[in-house]
Amino acid sequence: MLKVEIAATGNELIKGQIADANSPWIAEQLRIIGANASRIHTVGDEADALGDLLREIASRAHLALITGGLGSTPDDVTLRAVADCSGRRLVSNGEANRSGSVSPRTAPKQALVPEKSTLLPNPLGTAPGFCLSLNGCLFVFLPGVPREMKQMVTDSVLPLIRDQFADRLRPVLTQRLNVFGLTESGISQRLEEFPRLYPTIELGFRFVFPRIHLSLSADQAPTSPEELDRSKRWVLKKLGKNVVSAAEETMPEVLGYLLRENGGSISLAESCTGGLISRRITGVAGSSDYFPLSAVTYSNRTKKELLGVGESTLQQHGAVHEKTAEEMAEGMRRLAESTYALSTTGIAGPGGGTPDKPVGTVCIGLATPEGTESRRVHWDSGDRRANQSFFAECAMDLLRRRLLG
Amino acid sequence: MLKVEIAATGNELIKGQIADANSPWIAEQLRIIGANASRIHTVGDEADALGDLLREIASRAHLALITGGLGSTPDDVTLRAVADCSGRRLVSNGEANRSGSVSPRTAPKQALVPEKSTLLPNPLGTAPGFCLSLNGCLFVFLPGVPREMKQMVTDSVLPLIRDQFADRLRPVLTQRLNVFGLTESGISQRLEEFPRLYPTIELGFRFVFPRIHLSLSADQAPTSPEELDRSKRWVLKKLGKNVVSAAEETMPEVLGYLLRENGGSISLAESCTGGLISRRITGVAGSSDYFPLSAVTYSNRTKKELLGVGESTLQQHGAVHEKTAEEMAEGMRRLAESTYALSTTGIAGPGGGTPDKPVGTVCIGLATPEGTESRRVHWDSGDRRANQSFFAECAMDLLRRRLLG
Repeated sequence: MLKVEIAATGNELIKGQIADANSPWIAEQLRIIGANASRIHTVGDEADALGDLLREIASRAHLALITGGLGSTPDDVTLRAVADCSGRRLVSNGEANRSGSVSPRTAPKQALVPEKSTLLPNPLGTAPGFCLSLNGCLFVFLPGVPREMKQMVTDSVLPLIRDQFADRLRPVLTQRLNVFGLTESGISQRLEEFPRLYPTIELGFRFVFPRIHLSLSADQAPTSPEELDRSKRWVLKKLGKNVVSAAEETMPEVLGYLLRENGGSISLAESCTGGLISRRITGVAGSSDYFPLSAVTYSNRTKKELLGVGESTLQQHGAVHEKTAEEMAEGMRRLAESTYALSTTGIAGPGGGTPDKPVGTVCIGLATPEGTESRRVHWDSGDRRANQSFFAECAMDLLRRRLLG
Repeated sequence: MLKVEIAATGNELIKGQIADANSPWIAEQLRIIGANASRIHTVGDEADALGDLLREIASRAHLALITGGLGSTPDDVTLRAVADCSGRRLVSNGEANRSGSVSPRTAPKQALVPEKSTLLPNPLGTAPGFCLSLNGCLFVFLPGVPREMKQMVTDSVLPLIRDQFADRLRPVLTQRLNVFGLTESGISQRLEEFPRLYPTIELGFRFVFPRIHLSLSADQAPTSPEELDRSKRWVLKKLGKNVVSAAEETMPEVLGYLLRENGGSISLAESCTGGLISRRITGVAGSSDYFPLSAVTYSNRTKKELLGVGESTLQQHGAVHEKTAEEMAEGMRRLAESTYALSTTGIAGPGGGTPDKPVGTVCIGLATPEGTESRRVHWDSGDRRANQSFFAECAMDLLRRRLLG
């Protein structure tokens, strides 16, 4: 089995000022082509510490990807560490490879690379990457800037690994689904028979609040893509409308497709979600085609004056009630002249709860050409913003299920 | 110097499905009390791999914090690895420490700990942590659930480290500021004299889009807290109103304080920011006190009908223009009966740009009791959501500066 390790260098990483997001991304890309990382490391910008790490990795692994420390500031010590622990001289980019992408004149230090290394062009930045072999382990050195690093991995590094380690890669087939409306144990129950029916396929759950990402993955050898597709169709049938997307789209993206398909438009009257549903729906490019208007009506006065919620409704039921949610949605649908309108009114917390309407209570209204419906949901995570996220997803989900018919 | 290493275990981490956010958090906590991590590691849920790592760390470090793998599923292999590489038996929690927080009856596997280890109570979960010494290195094992882990670090682990390593900690004094409205090089220029005036204090920048976090830190030994405060006051004077907060509050939190202070309220007419400003302002608990209404008016029709933007304004200048932004803000201020109203209209991208109004153009309006003003800003990151974030921050910043007088 191919032994792979990944490392990131940087004082801001080792001090905990930022989390290393490069290494998980690299690990995922490698896994897709069939190489599993066994270790991920972080060290600071110290040539000695990095040198120790490189020697250690060289004694264990066949392949290593290292990000960071290739810039032109004194903090950037990767070149020095590589030179020290490989005994190679640093030479100019041009000397190493006449086809290199960087001119030594414009970026003198960045253009240095260890002699006899292979250059990896950096189309989005100035510091090139390079790879070389130490003690039989292939080391790939890449800049730490995520945008540059990702482009280089996709363009140069993955093809190189595919080429050099072809017979030792075990590509994994993967399918992902985005689920909302069932708990993890609810999903497990419905999919109870899966392991017996598809023993070579691994079923994975990942709670990406407030959704659940479900993955089906299998080694390419014993499992065919057709078999994986069959297992996916089986899962889709078992989970029904709880599958928001069988292709990794988000809830607002799916709503966008459905609204375009059916030629409808959506407007919003938000209270406790405070603009979050608007934000999510307008986060999709082109959403202006089906999204004319939304309002956040926090006060009773604006609920009445702008949306036409009845004084008697508010007096009889209060702001957090199905009836109020329905009138908010109806009022917004009239105001925006949209096909559909969604509303939310509830208590996101931390304050504002009462015994019969505790924090975490939300009423959702949906006005449609055929009439108006509403739901009351209760869920409290103890965190205002998480509650708002959950309420928003519930509201969008109500419309999604409606659009599915 | 105290040598510290941190490790996280988990298949989801080594596969790159999620990033390890525990280790950076721990690194930061340790740094505050005066211990700097030199390595951060990630391994999968394999007892052998973890055992190798533990032995390796024991040979190098004085202190190690390990998260994950303490649960009750077969994936959770930390106990096995510790038993293997320490040669210690696993005993029940009760046997190890009668004051332990978990009853072996309710959580049999989770209640196992290595013999002669010190239990660390887990007030928010079922799996207790523990610590023990291997080859002279103090290992602290903690659950991977962030909420549980953080509570335990704060309650038990930091006091324990302070106690055991008192004479080897080098506590760091830190102050943080949240800056908006200057580039990194603009800040550097204004603070050019800082290193000469305060040579023992380190000035750090961290770009937390769209803000810049500025930190002042110094070893406690040569620098007094008073000296650090003096350097902070100097920085505050140099950066003036560009300092959003001298105490790590966010822009909407600062707006909240300023609005309460001055007894004013704010309403919003958003177009290209799509509800993001509402979302951010209502993300602050208690914001309903000063936030009556906002609307997202994507279409020209709703800009005219709801906000009263003139047909002639739209015809003459188009939707993206200072004049349109001003009329949107004025219309919303009337509608909401608020003290202030902010508006945004622009092109977040990726489509919709024109030669004279390219993607990244935004016009911001601010209506106040004293009149209306507007700004045009251009900034394009190539990413729709990042552009929206930047536009939102610019709009809130315009109000913030106004409220500061």
